[in-house]
Amino acid sequence: GTRDYGPKAMAVRKSVLKIMTDAFERYGAETIETPVFELRDVLTGMYGEEGGKQLYDQEQEGELLSMRYDLTVPFARYLAMNRVAKMKRYQIARVYRRDPPAMTRGRYREFYQCDFDIAGRYDSMIPEGECLKMLDEVLSTLNLGQHVIKLNHRLMLDGMFAVIGVEDSQFKSVCSSIDKLDKQPWEKVEEELIKSRGLTPDAAARLGSLARFRELNPDLDNVEVLDRMMEIPELAANAKFKQGVEEIKLLLTYCAYAGVSNAVRVEPSLARGLDYYTGAIFEAVIPNELEGVKDEEGQPVGVGSVAGGGRYDGLVGTFAPKFSVPCCGVSFGIERLFAIIEAKNAVEQTAVRTSTTQVLIVSTHKNLLAHRWGLLSKVRSWGVPAEMTYKAHPMLLKQLQYAEERLIPLVLIIGERELREGVVKLRNTQTREEKDVKMDELQSTLAQMLPL
Amino acid sequence: GTRDYGPKAMAVRKSVLKIMTDAFERYGAETIETPVFELRDVLTGMYGEEGGKQLYDQEQEGELLSMRYDLTVPFARYLAMNRVAKMKRYQIARVYRRDPPAMTRGRYREFYQCDFDIAGRYDSMIPEGECLKMLDEVLSTLNLGQHVIKLNHRLMLDGMFAVIGVEDSQFKSVCSSIDKLDKQPWEKVEEELIKSRGLTPDAAARLGSLARFRELNPDLDNVEVLDRMMEIPELAANAKFKQGVEEIKLLLTYCAYAGVSNAVRVEPSLARGLDYYTGAIFEAVIPNELEGVKDEEGQPVGVGSVAGGGRYDGLVGTFAPKFSVPCCGVSFGIERLFAIIEAKNAVEQTAVRTSTTQVLIVSTHKNLLAHRWGLLSKVRSWGVPAEMTYKAHPMLLKQLQYAEERLIPLVLIIGERELREGVVKLRNTQTREEKDVKMDELQSTLAQMLPL
Repeated sequence: GTRDYGPKAMAVRKSVLKIMTDAFERYGAETIETPVFELRDVLTGMYGEEGGKQLYDQEQEGELLSMRYDLTVPFARYLAMNRVAKMKRYQIARVYRRDPPAMTRGRYREFYQCDFDIAGRYDSMIPEGECLKMLDEVLSTLNLGQHVIKLNHRLMLDGMFAVIGVEDSQFKSVCSSIDKLDKQPWEKVEEELIKSRGLTPDAAARLGSLARFRELNPDLDNVEVLDRMMEIPELAANAKFKQGVEEIKLLLTYCAYAGVSNAVRVEPSLARGLDYYTGAIFEAVIPNELEGVKDEEGQPVGVGSVAGGGRYDGLVGTFAPKFSVPCCGVSFGIERLFAIIEAKNAVEQTAVRTSTTQVLIVSTHKNLLAHRWGLLSKVRSWGVPAEMTYKAHPMLLKQLQYAEERLIPLVLIIGERELREGVVKLRNTQTREEKDVKMDELQSTLAQMLPL
Repeated sequence: GTRDYGPKAMAVRKSVLKIMTDAFERYGAETIETPVFELRDVLTGMYGEEGGKQLYDQEQEGELLSMRYDLTVPFARYLAMNRVAKMKRYQIARVYRRDPPAMTRGRYREFYQCDFDIAGRYDSMIPEGECLKMLDEVLSTLNLGQHVIKLNHRLMLDGMFAVIGVEDSQFKSVCSSIDKLDKQPWEKVEEELIKSRGLTPDAAARLGSLARFRELNPDLDNVEVLDRMMEIPELAANAKFKQGVEEIKLLLTYCAYAGVSNAVRVEPSLARGLDYYTGAIFEAVIPNELEGVKDEEGQPVGVGSVAGGGRYDGLVGTFAPKFSVPCCGVSFGIERLFAIIEAKNAVEQTAVRTSTTQVLIVSTHKNLLAHRWGLLSKVRSWGVPAEMTYKAHPMLLKQLQYAEERLIPLVLIIGERELREGVVKLRNTQTREEKDVKMDELQSTLAQMLPL
């Protein structure tokens, strides 16, 4: 259920995480780190029945501990424990689930989560707008094809369920059925609602007409979907539904202010399972297959959810009853993103560099180790990642081969002639062009040729 | 035994880790990631009796697992399992020890290690030279006062012990006594060697004269220490000792090639406890207290070991008998470095910034949220970390206060006048100077003022 990640996998991971952390920092976020273990009481009951079974438990000197299941609950526990009333934070760390692993689909028991959350009492929908803009920006930067950000509201779901007569106790199970609408035909979902969730055929049909409002009215835009649903008298009369609609409309206005792309799509069937959401909820999907990209089993890759989030105003308070901090945030399905980008690299035959080495220091003759090492230290002192081969008297050809295999773009060659004339021979590994550069012009020559 | 790290602690940690990873990458290293759990068999017997007691065990579906105790053994297991014959890698990750935690001294059960290792069959002492140069460079960059890199060789220790008549079975316990010489007077170490280690008073005295050779001959330089020890007939006649001396001499030559500072000091009493070292061993210490820096208990800070390492040629082979990969590496006492730098920051009253935000977007009037948000998105699209306050109609003073509290260097102010004239007011938070900048010159103005 766990695995090693070698240099190539790590290089891909680092490049994706750099896009993430750059974005989080561009949005002014701080970071924190919490222990890999939490007190079991903190986690129990947070993730529903299924999640509870997946906790890794351990007892230590009488303390019952579990390995963290996600980063949201530890964040809320951190805010409550330290009485932090506002914080914009990101956290990228591994979490643990005793889940039957499906390794071919890139699912392990130890995997990364990558979260961005805004905690604090702010004006309505502004934090949500920041989250959506950041999400939209990151997905555009990753360049994985057109994404869609589905948007719904917990109060709109509550309102729809109330109108249908779904009990509070059925909320989660009905949500989980509804949420399948993006993968299953309505008939299957309807059958589940009736047979497993106990809805009457009439209630199921009415729920379908509401949850599928967008699907059944494909010509409506976001605001029209909301306005037309508000024309249904029972929904309009439901205070929760009305408030949800107003908040989503405000959020759509803010998305326009922030310049969020037209990826946002109001979707009344979006019903993210976690109980703790209290306001807007959203989920980013990349609906189209990536051209030519197949996974290890030959299936097209790129379908599905890559991030999700929403508002959870009650979670912090569960850890400190008199201390409540409204929160909203986004969690990226970072392992899925890694897998997609690895598959894409494979198809496009992108050469993955596993080190940042820009220069290889090479000698043409024996007995030049002192010169080679001196030049190496000098080049590194300029901040340029550089290497030499670890032989006292290496052969020129082997050294040049090393540069080619490791995709090191530049080679600096020293031999007796070069030393005598106070130059080095600069070789471009790809074009194999060579030219002499004076020693005292080397730093500026390299600075011009290399990325910052 | 574990703790949270808030934004300030994380900001310090990130800055130290950046110095580390920049150095590792400048040396051409790759990175890998291994699971937090290893099979218990992999770890058992690796860390001596004490270490064995500190493993965090767990059973999962019949597999006996333990949480990793360090990063060296998982690296060796990785090389063996994947039949990797050469790799220069760094790894920065948390490890776990069921140790009685001493939290006031910054020791926890969950803590970071930060390792750099060179695996592969190379010419003698070249990898060691790279490790020492890198170590010397990183410690200079950290600017914590003059450091000393103590250098010894496992074969020199073996030779000295053979000459004294110390049995192989006593190696570790005698090493642990000898290694205390930097903290305890000789009389106490001598007493331990006689009473607990079973050496005769004569053998203890002779061991003292060898291990303390540097201390007893303070005027000798590195090569003279080695030459003078080789004038002792029994040592000169010991093949292991002789080989150790020759290798250390070669390493000293290579240190000169690479431009290692004069911090390196041959120290025959250096006896790092771990059984797996087979060649050169080294340890970096910062012997002097940092001026004015006290820890939480009011004690001077800065003393002690901050990194160590050496050659371990047999470890990979223990996981794959027919596959042997010589290795050498450095491990940084990164938690100690974090603690020293936090204490130093506190003394020097260094303001720690917890985000990278460079610009705060501010409005002077109500009803400018659309303009504020539009400008925010524009500034971020230039790659500049920027924020606004999350109020629809914030007061100017509150916004400027936010910039001051959060140490955000620049503020961009928009009001009705600025919008009318197509300018923004640029305010320097520290000097409070303000000037108008034309909208279409804003990007280049910011680019000039901000760090890259």
